Amino acid sequence: MRKTVLSGMRPTGRLHLGHYFGALNNWVQMQNEYNCYYMSADWHALTTDYADTSNVAGNILEMVADWLTAGVDPQKAVLFKQSAVSAHSELFLILSMITPLGWLERCPTYKEQKNEIKNKDLNNFGFLGYPVLMASDILIYKADYVPVGEDQLAHLEFSREITRRFNNFYGNVLVEPQAKLTKSARVPGLDGRKMSKSYGNSIFLGEDDDSIKKKVQTMFTDPLKIKKDDPGHPEGCVVFAFHKIFNKDFKVRQEECKAGAVGCVACKKQIMEMLSEFMKPLAQKRKDLISDKSYLQKIIDEGSSKANETAQKTLAQIRKALKF
Amino acid sequence: MRKTVLSGMRPTGRLHLGHYFGALNNWVQMQNEYNCYYMSADWHALTTDYADTSNVAGNILEMVADWLTAGVDPQKAVLFKQSAVSAHSELFLILSMITPLGWLERCPTYKEQKNEIKNKDLNNFGFLGYPVLMASDILIYKADYVPVGEDQLAHLEFSREITRRFNNFYGNVLVEPQAKLTKSARVPGLDGRKMSKSYGNSIFLGEDDDSIKKKVQTMFTDPLKIKKDDPGHPEGCVVFAFHKIFNKDFKVRQEECKAGAVGCVACKKQIMEMLSEFMKPLAQKRKDLISDKSYLQKIIDEGSSKANETAQKTLAQIRKALKF
Ligand code: SF4
Ligand code: SF4
Repeated sequence: MRKTVLSGMRPTGRLHLGHYFGALNNWVQMQNEYNCYYMSADWHALTTDYADTSNVAGNILEMVADWLTAGVDPQKAVLFKQSAVSAHSELFLILSMITPLGWLERCPTYKEQKNEIKNKDLNNFGFLGYPVLMASDILIYKADYVPVGEDQLAHLEFSREITRRFNNFYGNVLVEPQAKLTKSARVPGLDGRKMSKSYGNSIFLGEDDDSIKKKVQTMFTDPLKIKKDDPGHPEGCVVFAFHKIFNKDFKVRQEECKAGAVGCVACKKQIMEMLSEFMKPLAQKRKDLISDKSYLQKIIDEGSSKANETAQKTLAQIRKALKF
Repeated sequence: MRKTVLSGMRPTGRLHLGHYFGALNNWVQMQNEYNCYYMSADWHALTTDYADTSNVAGNILEMVADWLTAGVDPQKAVLFKQSAVSAHSELFLILSMITPLGWLERCPTYKEQKNEIKNKDLNNFGFLGYPVLMASDILIYKADYVPVGEDQLAHLEFSREITRRFNNFYGNVLVEPQAKLTKSARVPGLDGRKMSKSYGNSIFLGEDDDSIKKKVQTMFTDPLKIKKDDPGHPEGCVVFAFHKIFNKDFKVRQEECKAGAVGCVACKKQIMEMLSEFMKPLAQKRKDLISDKSYLQKIIDEGSSKANETAQKTLAQIRKALKF
């Protein structure tokens, strides 16, 4: 039998190349091998953006358009909206009752995020319980695998621990999910930091040609390489990071740069063209998709109804185990 | 339009006279004046009894039989099971996101219960969030009134505050519930402490005659009144507390006791008879009810389905307000 995968994204709006090479690429591969549930995590968005939810619905459509643009196939994977599957909240409530407060307070991402996000008040009960909601998302589909980066292993470990605790109290109902460590290319933002919408350093999926070219112009390069024949340091150069992704001969370029055999202007120009070529069909596809909102809505609705079916089955087993 | 009332009890098993005179009596009155939702709070039972849930389902049937025995009428009030109305959990999740941790940590009942209940580990996320669940129970029906004793005012105040916070963020959707302070007779247990199943000092609704008589024998009386003509102190006497409830001439008895004009044996005998008379029809009614479990189940199922309808309406408004 096919194994099940659960993955999700918060609906923060348009996706960028960081999402594409960091996650979506993987989603497209996994949909051929696994029963995939891909979730638009609108309740998660509430944990930090509870004070203004006006963009959530629009963001979901944009995001699903991006998923399809990247090649996610609603015939192969279940694309759904978290808040349309009430079973997540019911499992959240049940797991809440058996979650030791200490497990949450010790959670490294909880501490980190509270330190990082300074402009919002995150001293909320739901924010503290974020790992419980994540566990519910995974466990309600009995997912065998969850694709995670190294930095999210702690969250998944929480899901595994709470599964063991539940099964220990009520019998073997829930499935302990395994981490699926994903190999993903790191795409830096234009300035060399992590690509992130909030940093204003992103290239968006399906972005138009002119705007891409302007952005490549601004990419951070080796500041010590001024003239064409100055020897360069490709390691820290954003343009080179893009070569590594788009140019199969990136090793040649690496040597050329170091030897001062190529100038940054020409080097950028080449990436401009490659990126442009890569993006053109995606931009067209995205344009078509986003012009048909009712089609996107239909995909989410149908996916959510499939997700509901699976989730209700698990919930029935959970209720039985609780003898409710 | 009729105002709405929400009240509930944890399914801890058979109810006793403390429940009858403290709450059920009130429920029977309120069902004629208000839209009443009476809830069997099985999820609440999880907050403290998560480790063993095997009795919950049976306890619900016993409890509903007691409700009907006391005169609660499923034609007038909606009798339902909390866990059969998933909207409670969805509102719990949503309210979680906007509940400041400090509001919960300061909650007096939280501190009290944690100090009181020593034999169970209550350091759980769900136990901390108990007031959030209570608020969800009330708000999902837009209840105007919640019958509470003085000691529960803090919990209701939490529901009112979280209502204001929600409405402030998302618009006027939820209704701020008002406390309905109830006048209820205090029924002491046989030993003079609060009547409570766990103290073993209770007289149960529909208890049989022999067993009632034995229990009245053991009731605590004034230890200074030994002989019939010793002057007694009715204030601290359990038998006298029962006279106050069952004997309309209790003031006469008060004087007789003080004057040494009556002995404790005769005084107890009188209460035995009054209690016996009071209980006989209830015992018969309860016996009939409990012998037809499928009837009781049908009442809960039908009530839960009505409760679901109301709750889904509120939930639709909440989702719309959240723009989800
Ligand atoms: S030549 Fe290319 S790789 Fe080298 S520093 Fe310039 S832009 Fe970067
Ligand atoms: S006479 Fe009655 S009221 Fe007075 S102490 Fe005895 S039992 Fe109590």
